[in-house]
Amino acid sequence: MAPRYAPSLRSRLGPLLLFLQTGFIISAFYFEIRDEAIHRDIYAEFQDVNVMVVLGFGFLGTFLVRHGFSSSGFNLLVAAIATQWALILMGIESWYDKGRIFVDLRSILVAEMSAASALISMGAVLGKANPVQLILLALLEVSGFILNEWVLLSLLKVRPLNEIMLLHIFGAFFGLTVTWILHRKGSHEGFEKEKFDKKSGLFSMLGSVFLWMFWPTFNSVLVEDHVPWRKLGAVCSTYLALAVSAVTAASVSVLSSARGKLNLIQMQSCILAGGVAVGVSMSAVHQPWEAMAIGFTAAVLSSTGFKYLKSHMLLAFDCHDTAATLSTHGLPGLLGWFAHLILEIKNCDDHTVAIRFAVFHICTLLVTITISLTMGTVTGFLLSLNFWRPPQNRKCFDDQAFWEFPHLAVRK
Amino acid sequence: MAPRYAPSLRSRLGPLLLFLQTGFIISAFYFEIRDEAIHRDIYAEFQDVNVMVVLGFGFLGTFLVRHGFSSSGFNLLVAAIATQWALILMGIESWYDKGRIFVDLRSILVAEMSAASALISMGAVLGKANPVQLILLALLEVSGFILNEWVLLSLLKVRPLNEIMLLHIFGAFFGLTVTWILHRKGSHEGFEKEKFDKKSGLFSMLGSVFLWMFWPTFNSVLVEDHVPWRKLGAVCSTYLALAVSAVTAASVSVLSSARGKLNLIQMQSCILAGGVAVGVSMSAVHQPWEAMAIGFTAAVLSSTGFKYLKSHMLLAFDCHDTAATLSTHGLPGLLGWFAHLILEIKNCDDHTVAIRFAVFHICTLLVTITISLTMGTVTGFLLSLNFWRPPQNRKCFDDQAFWEFPHLAVRK
Amino acid sequence: MAPRYAPSLRSRLGPLLLFLQTGFIISAFYFEIRDEAIHRDIYAEFQDVNVMVVLGFGFLGTFLVRHGFSSSGFNLLVAAIATQWALILMGIESWYDKGRIFVDLRSILVAEMSAASALISMGAVLGKANPVQLILLALLEVSGFILNEWVLLSLLKVRPLNEIMLLHIFGAFFGLTVTWILHRKGSHEGFEKEKFDKKSGLFSMLGSVFLWMFWPTFNSVLVEDHVPWRKLGAVCSTYLALAVSAVTAASVSVLSSARGKLNLIQMQSCILAGGVAVGVSMSAVHQPWEAMAIGFTAAVLSSTGFKYLKSHMLLAFDCHDTAATLSTHGLPGLLGWFAHLILEIKNCDDHTVAIRFAVFHICTLLVTITISLTMGTVTGFLLSLNFWRPPQNRKCFDDQAFWEFPHLAVRK
Repeated sequence: MAPRYAPSLRSRLGPLLLFLQTGFIISAFYFEIRDEAIHRDIYAEFQDVNVMVVLGFGFLGTFLVRHGFSSSGFNLLVAAIATQWALILMGIESWYDKGRIFVDLRSILVAEMSAASALISMGAVLGKANPVQLILLALLEVSGFILNEWVLLSLLKVRPLNEIMLLHIFGAFFGLTVTWILHRKGSHEGFEKEKFDKKSGLFSMLGSVFLWMFWPTFNSVLVEDHVPWRKLGAVCSTYLALAVSAVTAASVSVLSSARGKLNLIQMQSCILAGGVAVGVSMSAVHQPWEAMAIGFTAAVLSSTGFKYLKSHMLLAFDCHDTAATLSTHGLPGLLGWFAHLILEIKNCDDHTVAIRFAVFHICTLLVTITISLTMGTVTGFLLSLNFWRPPQNRKCFDDQAFWEFPHLAVRK
Repeated sequence: MAPRYAPSLRSRLGPLLLFLQTGFIISAFYFEIRDEAIHRDIYAEFQDVNVMVVLGFGFLGTFLVRHGFSSSGFNLLVAAIATQWALILMGIESWYDKGRIFVDLRSILVAEMSAASALISMGAVLGKANPVQLILLALLEVSGFILNEWVLLSLLKVRPLNEIMLLHIFGAFFGLTVTWILHRKGSHEGFEKEKFDKKSGLFSMLGSVFLWMFWPTFNSVLVEDHVPWRKLGAVCSTYLALAVSAVTAASVSVLSSARGKLNLIQMQSCILAGGVAVGVSMSAVHQPWEAMAIGFTAAVLSSTGFKYLKSHMLLAFDCHDTAATLSTHGLPGLLGWFAHLILEIKNCDDHTVAIRFAVFHICTLLVTITISLTMGTVTGFLLSLNFWRPPQNRKCFDDQAFWEFPHLAVRK
Repeated sequence: MAPRYAPSLRSRLGPLLLFLQTGFIISAFYFEIRDEAIHRDIYAEFQDVNVMVVLGFGFLGTFLVRHGFSSSGFNLLVAAIATQWALILMGIESWYDKGRIFVDLRSILVAEMSAASALISMGAVLGKANPVQLILLALLEVSGFILNEWVLLSLLKVRPLNEIMLLHIFGAFFGLTVTWILHRKGSHEGFEKEKFDKKSGLFSMLGSVFLWMFWPTFNSVLVEDHVPWRKLGAVCSTYLALAVSAVTAASVSVLSSARGKLNLIQMQSCILAGGVAVGVSMSAVHQPWEAMAIGFTAAVLSSTGFKYLKSHMLLAFDCHDTAATLSTHGLPGLLGWFAHLILEIKNCDDHTVAIRFAVFHICTLLVTITISLTMGTVTGFLLSLNFWRPPQNRKCFDDQAFWEFPHLAVRK
């Protein structure tokens, strides 16, 4: 008979966290705060991204009725670790050259965006992995993402804006690979506690709405300021794409339901599709209608994917994707990549330039997906070790495996 | 016997949304992003207004215990549609002149404020109308509001700041007219599911608190920058009026209760009264004590209205006002209008000028109320058609009429 | 037999609020809005602090399962009163000199930070005091805090930044003294309703996360702009300290639990410890690793205190500290004070200067603690009068003592 209680993480999680944090503090001896005036703009942008990463992603996962503490708590924990780790990794070059790692708001912001790629992957394994596994996943994923960045920057000379936005594609494929390798027997019957209720749906609505509201910052933050209206364009395009996505997601949701009802969790994911797709194609979107058309297509893809792909992936590929990472980030990300290609080619007068861009753009995607799948596979096999004490099937999607509850808690 | 299930909206809501969204995207071929540097200030203000419209208004209505998904979800949907629609309507003149509709953050912001007038009216019919009806209401209301704006601007030369702030009065009377026409037999007995509980009260507290915190932006955003301290004055006045409202609303709430208890839903509405009233009278408020006195009076009016008017309106006029739109926006709005009149006259040395201002100011109100009531009546009769498949009385205030719930959802 | 219902506050709370608010409005005749351009930066900072005070502190206390309305509602009420009161007290000098009290965003912001000291103390008596007591506590505490400020400024020439940051120490000791004097027989058995559940834990998570996200503003807002990179340093240091605290708090939480589980309420308090400690020592922290080390130590202290001190204080000193004010604000505050001392001495080349600084720094602390304990004692004895009608033990931690609930509210 299986043990009644989830295995204790005391000897795994505690030392791991202490070890990591001590290591980070020791590395911080090489940190130096860049000696410049604070720029109010970057601070406001940093706060917006901070809100998206900590609150948005954190509460988006609280729809799982008995997994709210874990969704929000582990998200904060992983974000805090992954950001510090990304800050160190991104500083290695400067540390090698000058012996110092320079820290300012912009570098923390980029580190948080790299951490976001790990939070996206977390969505795929949410509820089925313990915090030790989530932290290891985040460390490896951030390493992979920064490796990918470095490869794209140094080999293909991709612009920083464009390669950071690939985080949606990178995160989605990484997460799917991990959850595919960590497949549990019994997933097909469904997990007893994988469901939502009236209140948990509202908590995740909160996360979704914060992501929706602040997404224009997320997409515009890395747009260069030296062509000033580009930033305005990025903000307006993202806003319009999100508005279109919200309407389209509701439409597809009601049309694809036999009794004409909306699905809240589907909407929460799919209203964001326009933001993802426009983010990935940002540097090629110049007209509002282009952004809106991308938002429309992204929402249709994402909603349809949520409705039909999720269950098919489980049946056909043994791939259980808790928070629909594929349709929330993967498909809209790929669509954004494709829209970028089409728009760029459309604007080219010269065939040779167009073909060269296409080859370059396809290489960018191939490199990203290759690194993502490779790192995902390595991570998946590492996490499948029993040493990390994963929860039993019966304890999946259950806060009680990881959180103390007062015994006398009775409902009113 | 009445049917057990709410009528399916598949054939109504889905096509309507698709049709609207396609139409908006086609109109967007004429959109052009204004070619100017982004101004960080306007972006921060845009975000604040965005938070108020999407999160504030959305969660304010979640106090209804079984209507949280609808309150927050339909609010987002209606806001996304109404903003796009307002953007197009506001651009008609420029489209006629130059063949383009110019879009920038300021125009999106003003479009969101116009959409807010529809969200205010939605409060009156909340829980009793289906999303199709809400969307039609929003389209007609935004059209009416922009018509009103155009009439006031071109006939009476009202300043943009002043006429946009009339959205509280416009929205309240529009909503009341619609809910009066849509009166349901059986409202007098009360709806079974029209109530709040411990958790739903906290969700709406969240919405209320976000409105309270960001209201200073809402009132100051349209104040012209060229007299710079005017904007500071608007922010400080609004903050002080809101603080006074919060204290006064609590006081009236406890004094008007037989057993000396506070009412959370009453407080959530009435702490905002000062913001509404000061907003409407903004251009005449010059001293902090004036703002505070207006906040005090507005909260007294609003709290008393919430306590006594709501039930009387139902009994005497067959007018069921779910979210107390009259006392939250209508009465404080009228008070603000009146305070504006008094303060303006007080500051006039010349009798003739004072009388001319009074006539002008009264005309402004009369035009607004006339257009609001007329459009409200038209909308009300349109929405009363059975073609839109309104929910049965038993399905009012119930998310299950519109949202999928997993059948196996059991409470812990 | 004890009465079944909590005593009515109609004759206490209503008149008190009316009297205070009328008094504030009358004082406001002397208010004058400072005649200067609004500075966008200060507005954004004001909004962040506003969010922390109203939303952050308000929702942090909602973990109590039946006390959510009171935690969030009374927090708003007390914040609105205490801010107005602080605005008046801070203006007395200018009123005496020039007959006017100048109001601008900076003065409202500082008033809100003074009000925050009262909200910290409220945490210690939360659930055991009625709103009348909370309001009196806030009035006296803000008076004491501003007296302390005045003494430190005029006698010891402490810089404004440093003495305002003492609010954590002042608030914690004030609150502990009050709760110690208000000790109830029966506290040792525990209060029936002092517990959390799945949803209430998520509401307080929301408050905690907002405090965590905006704490960099709280610490940097008073840093002088004239050395521009100081403000950037304050923001980065606070962010890093908070990230370290989050990881460390989780580590200590899991290590100190017999079954290796995390405690959500403990984490919600202790992830903030780094922000408190770095805030108090801000003007001496120059290196990122210093901030991170302080964050680490603060989180260890705070988590250990939460786990062991809370129950010992109740057993040994009859001091029941609802929201763990000692370990959330008291211990990290003291640590910050100590870190400030050490860092300042470390950077001194001259022994005499170091010793003079140490004496000065110790005096600052002694004055603060003395005034805090004295005012706390006075407040405690005042609040212990039966005249204020405190709730019975059975009605502690229960919203039903103060808030109307519809009788027909049945759970789905």
